[in-house]
Amino acid sequence: MRFSCYQDDLNDALQFVMRAVAVKPQTPVLAGVYIKSEGSVLEVQGNNYAVGIIVRIPVSTEDDGEIVVNGKKLQEFVRNMPGRTINVFEEENTLVMESGGASVRLSTMDVQEFPKVKTPEAEMSFKVQSIALHDLLRKTVFAAAGNEGTRPIFTGCCFEVRDELISIVATNTHRLALAKGILSATYNEVSFVVPAVTLRDIMNRINLNDRDTFATINCSTRFVTFTFDNAIVTARLIEGLFPPYDRVIPTSSMTRVIVETQKFKEAIEFVALMAKETEYNTVKLVFNNEAVEVSSDSPEIGDAVKIIDAHIEGDDLEIAFNAAYIVDVLKVIDTEKVELTFNDPFSPAAIFEPGNDNYIYIATPVRT
Amino acid sequence: MRFSCYQDDLNDALQFVMRAVAVKPQTPVLAGVYIKSEGSVLEVQGNNYAVGIIVRIPVSTEDDGEIVVNGKKLQEFVRNMPGRTINVFEEENTLVMESGGASVRLSTMDVQEFPKVKTPEAEMSFKVQSIALHDLLRKTVFAAAGNEGTRPIFTGCCFEVRDELISIVATNTHRLALAKGILSATYNEVSFVVPAVTLRDIMNRINLNDRDTFATINCSTRFVTFTFDNAIVTARLIEGLFPPYDRVIPTSSMTRVIVETQKFKEAIEFVALMAKETEYNTVKLVFNNEAVEVSSDSPEIGDAVKIIDAHIEGDDLEIAFNAAYIVDVLKVIDTEKVELTFNDPFSPAAIFEPGNDNYIYIATPVRT
Repeated sequence: MRFSCYQDDLNDALQFVMRAVAVKPQTPVLAGVYIKSEGSVLEVQGNNYAVGIIVRIPVSTEDDGEIVVNGKKLQEFVRNMPGRTINVFEEENTLVMESGGASVRLSTMDVQEFPKVKTPEAEMSFKVQSIALHDLLRKTVFAAAGNEGTRPIFTGCCFEVRDELISIVATNTHRLALAKGILSATYNEVSFVVPAVTLRDIMNRINLNDRDTFATINCSTRFVTFTFDNAIVTARLIEGLFPPYDRVIPTSSMTRVIVETQKFKEAIEFVALMAKETEYNTVKLVFNNEAVEVSSDSPEIGDAVKIIDAHIEGDDLEIAFNAAYIVDVLKVIDTEKVELTFNDPFSPAAIFEPGNDNYIYIATPVRT
Repeated sequence: MRFSCYQDDLNDALQFVMRAVAVKPQTPVLAGVYIKSEGSVLEVQGNNYAVGIIVRIPVSTEDDGEIVVNGKKLQEFVRNMPGRTINVFEEENTLVMESGGASVRLSTMDVQEFPKVKTPEAEMSFKVQSIALHDLLRKTVFAAAGNEGTRPIFTGCCFEVRDELISIVATNTHRLALAKGILSATYNEVSFVVPAVTLRDIMNRINLNDRDTFATINCSTRFVTFTFDNAIVTARLIEGLFPPYDRVIPTSSMTRVIVETQKFKEAIEFVALMAKETEYNTVKLVFNNEAVEVSSDSPEIGDAVKIIDAHIEGDDLEIAFNAAYIVDVLKVIDTEKVELTFNDPFSPAAIFEPGNDNYIYIATPVRT
């Protein structure tokens, strides 16, 4: 193996591939990254069995070859290489990298032991514009549960494809986000649940400047594969049935509020400083008289209040939420104003962009 | 109490004062910050008995008064206040702050219970230019020990004043930094040891743009007080005798090296990526043939090497150090080139700015 490449390209590839390398690997080879140079393409792979990532970058290869080395050390050195290009070759079970007067030698591991990323045969396959996928993910992934003792199904996002419609849903049972998009062709019905942590990695990888690329999504019974121009991500699906969520979406409302997104977010963030160490991080919202009073209090410490203008239709209302559940969605609302609908202090509220039927967020109030 | 002030001023005062407020206070009032408004001056105090800080800022007072409130919450709200000015008043055991449409109420604590900062009568007092003090501290404080099981005396910096000379020394027994300066008057001999953590806070507080201010340093048997134009810091001294350090400073050398400071620092930081998870974080330096080879290796992982130009006089040498002990001092060396002198691989090395007799850093090598 002997090739040279740009430090930027290899650094970028390793940064993504390392998302599939176990932090605490069960066997040494799982701390490794697989590298294959062949002609003008270098393939970099990481695999922790739950997720596998392949990235391809342009290189100038003198001798084809494949190798496995410690991923963390490789990434650290490549990131800090003093030169703009890196010359890489293999020599006596060692990967040698030379750049800008520095030389790094990393012991290689047995290539045969490395679990190369497999892309299972697809039972169903569809295409989605990369930036459209990014938008769907940005508006939903945050609403999934973390790993704190919830059922595994809630740590994933449910993809549903039917005809030319795709929808992605995430919920931690206290809040839910649902985003819909239109595909450029008609597909058979399919639904599957992908770990949110992997979707976040995919979202962060999508280049928002690149409006012309598509992702091909292949799914089989147990795996999903996202194929981009220069990267492939394959992830084990979360097993189980995603709960029916249609009935938690309110169909009518008693109070309808329109408020400036940014001002509303800042007001909640400010008053929530009072509550942030308390159990429910609760903020109270009082809607009446064309204003919303945002407040929070903490026993023995004090309270904070901010009043902002609002357009209100229907009943006056006093309701309380976990501040994070409202702030999280206001961060992904792209419109200057945001619309909220309520029924009563005990029923879920709906939050959305005015006039946009393709996104809805539901938050359950806190009882005070 | 009723006053108004700039958000920036109060935020700045609280940021510094909070350095003297216990993170885990033994009694609730020690989580408090004391505030006194009187005429055009607001005094803000924090005190954890080991360190007390007073900051004074300009305000416009309507009613004089004094109050104690939770420091952390006060700081968080003041930092995030939406307006440029803040109106503050007391109302029924509550401090009320209003700014930019937001209103915050914080419960007050008993002013009588708060341990107001005392400035013990000075047995000896001297003056030093603030930016000169900053420079002395920047070059020494980092060399003190952390709190990890060393003798308390090594967690401090030793101040020594004699005639018109001030020197500050810090050591963790493996490395030592000594910086000297000239005072503008002649003083009686005195020496005392101040906690490094407090000196770091003082250093960060000094405004480097202000070349005309002086710090007055008062010391008594058990306390030292630093008085600046708008702030006073009083700290309990570390008891015990600072060990004699003169004899660890080499008086001769077999190898003398001059190398570019920045390149040397970058080379060590780069190769040390290999060793950074190992116990001693060791880098090896080989000086010969007008070059220094900087290298590091990690068993089973690999090795890294960078060679940089050097001017070398005397014997060739191979020596190893904890990488951090060399990088730390290279960060505070202000000259383009740095000078190092050595005797043998087992004896301490000296590092300094060429031609500057007022600063020396000593590092003990690692035996490999």
